[in-house]
Amino acid sequence: MREHGGNLDLAQQRFGGRAEDWIDLSTGINRLPYPVGEVSARAWSALPSRAEIDALHQAARGAYRTSAPVVAMGGAQAAIQLLPQLAAPGRARILAPTYNEYAGVLSAAGWDVEEVGELDALAGADLAVVINPNNPDGRCHMPKGLLALLPRVRRLVVDESFADAAPQLSLASEADRPGVLVLRSFGKFYGLAGLRLGFAIGNAADVAKLAAMSGPWPISGAAIAIGCRALRDDAWAETTTARLARDCVRLDAMTQSQGWRLVGGTPLFRLYQTPDALGAQEKLARWQIWSRVFAREPSWLRLGLPGSESEWTRLAEALAG
Amino acid sequence: MREHGGNLDLAQQRFGGRAEDWIDLSTGINRLPYPVGEVSARAWSALPSRAEIDALHQAARGAYRTSAPVVAMGGAQAAIQLLPQLAAPGRARILAPTYNEYAGVLSAAGWDVEEVGELDALAGADLAVVINPNNPDGRCHMPKGLLALLPRVRRLVVDESFADAAPQLSLASEADRPGVLVLRSFGKFYGLAGLRLGFAIGNAADVAKLAAMSGPWPISGAAIAIGCRALRDDAWAETTTARLARDCVRLDAMTQSQGWRLVGGTPLFRLYQTPDALGAQEKLARWQIWSRVFAREPSWLRLGLPGSESEWTRLAEALAG
Repeated sequence: MREHGGNLDLAQQRFGGRAEDWIDLSTGINRLPYPVGEVSARAWSALPSRAEIDALHQAARGAYRTSAPVVAMGGAQAAIQLLPQLAAPGRARILAPTYNEYAGVLSAAGWDVEEVGELDALAGADLAVVINPNNPDGRCHMPKGLLALLPRVRRLVVDESFADAAPQLSLASEADRPGVLVLRSFGKFYGLAGLRLGFAIGNAADVAKLAAMSGPWPISGAAIAIGCRALRDDAWAETTTARLARDCVRLDAMTQSQGWRLVGGTPLFRLYQTPDALGAQEKLARWQIWSRVFAREPSWLRLGLPGSESEWTRLAEALAG
Repeated sequence: MREHGGNLDLAQQRFGGRAEDWIDLSTGINRLPYPVGEVSARAWSALPSRAEIDALHQAARGAYRTSAPVVAMGGAQAAIQLLPQLAAPGRARILAPTYNEYAGVLSAAGWDVEEVGELDALAGADLAVVINPNNPDGRCHMPKGLLALLPRVRRLVVDESFADAAPQLSLASEADRPGVLVLRSFGKFYGLAGLRLGFAIGNAADVAKLAAMSGPWPISGAAIAIGCRALRDDAWAETTTARLARDCVRLDAMTQSQGWRLVGGTPLFRLYQTPDALGAQEKLARWQIWSRVFAREPSWLRLGLPGSESEWTRLAEALAG
């Protein structure tokens, strides 16, 4: 398995404790999740029906402000797994540094993968990948800049896993253009990563191909029921967006006292330059707070946002300790 | 979408009613499901950890009585979706008539698919597929007969989606032999098809390849938690196996009065030869009981087993009516 956040196993092996004792800030998953509520007996027992899946697609179109074709999948990751098969292997270019699954999955499937540092350098790719906003550094691209790239690449995949709280960045409304494919994660903003839900939004041909590869029942009944409810709840999304913005300011202020410099981030995580990231990770881990470090950038530490007030307090104590 | 059971949308369009009003006997899903119980906050929110997924694999090995490598996936269907990529397209032979997804998925991926009527006729295939016991006719093969086929095919896929209540049929304990791949469905016997959980059991190379194609988080936290609990519950499995055996006798007796002849079946569904299957489907549908008919075999009607006593009563009334 490639290096990821959310690897709490490793934290437990090294520092002890049960999973539920830890505050896992090693991911960008909202720690105040959408309330799951009751899941009906039918959602557990029955195969999801066509009508139920269509209703979820409709809810996703509403939340993501698009009328383009949509297909639900088991997380944005499930779409990444299928990307290599959308076309015969060719030249993939990925705007890096970024989420390492794209390079890994494409290379394994025989694609020629190049990581590039600038948007312009994606030109000429058969498959260009941009994570927007980017993980882990929060680099952003406005839709106009991405659309300008379209004539110069065969297919542009825009991973908007962290775009829920920054809808102005989204290319979802333009996703039915030929050559565009937008991926959305449900679990991060809604804090329900264990549900395994994400969406691909694109032109009819690509979406039909992804749907065929995913099979008739790619997501659970609970994902459909909870996803429908959450994606239609504009008030919750608005409140959460505002809260996350405030919490980012709060976290940046708290960590400044450590001599950490903000490299960038999104409303769901912050990336700091630290004098000693491994040391900082260990210091937090002694308080059972898990964070993300990067083998390739040994000064970087990424932190998700604490949820409850008691989580904020423990983080403050850990930083002071 | 190919013709399947569980298409309650169609029943509702034609005969009205809400999904929860219907008794859906169009599938082989146990209607007295394993009790879901509480799902922890962490199962909803966190990405499944390596340790949690490993524990589920261990529980599956226990339930399926094997020490072979196992990988959990989003239903047996998720494994079927990936089958075409286990090897370069070649000659696939499927013991038919059977579940139509194999032929559909393999053909779409460029395999040369032939449906054959006898086990022996699978010889020579690059990929041979046997559903054991078979859906819809319940045809069974003992492990010895399947193993005898091994030297004559490149890869043998045995779909044991309906084998939970007939463990003597299972090839799971032999699944780590080169060329064998066993697929198991969790949702049918445990009555939780909406959970989307299944397993591939095979040799290390095949299982590693399927795991890599499925990605790091192919199933939900709820599937892991409930799956672990259910697969370790031998007492529930035993009671359920005994109950299903009794219920098959009861259903066969009830339907005999209609002049229906048992073609075959498994402990989770029965296939009947009827004078007029579409007429019988409509008769049951007027009581909001949905059944499965087959375009290619217009006299066949497949019925799952009712669950509660009130479901049995409604079925008796529908048959009498």
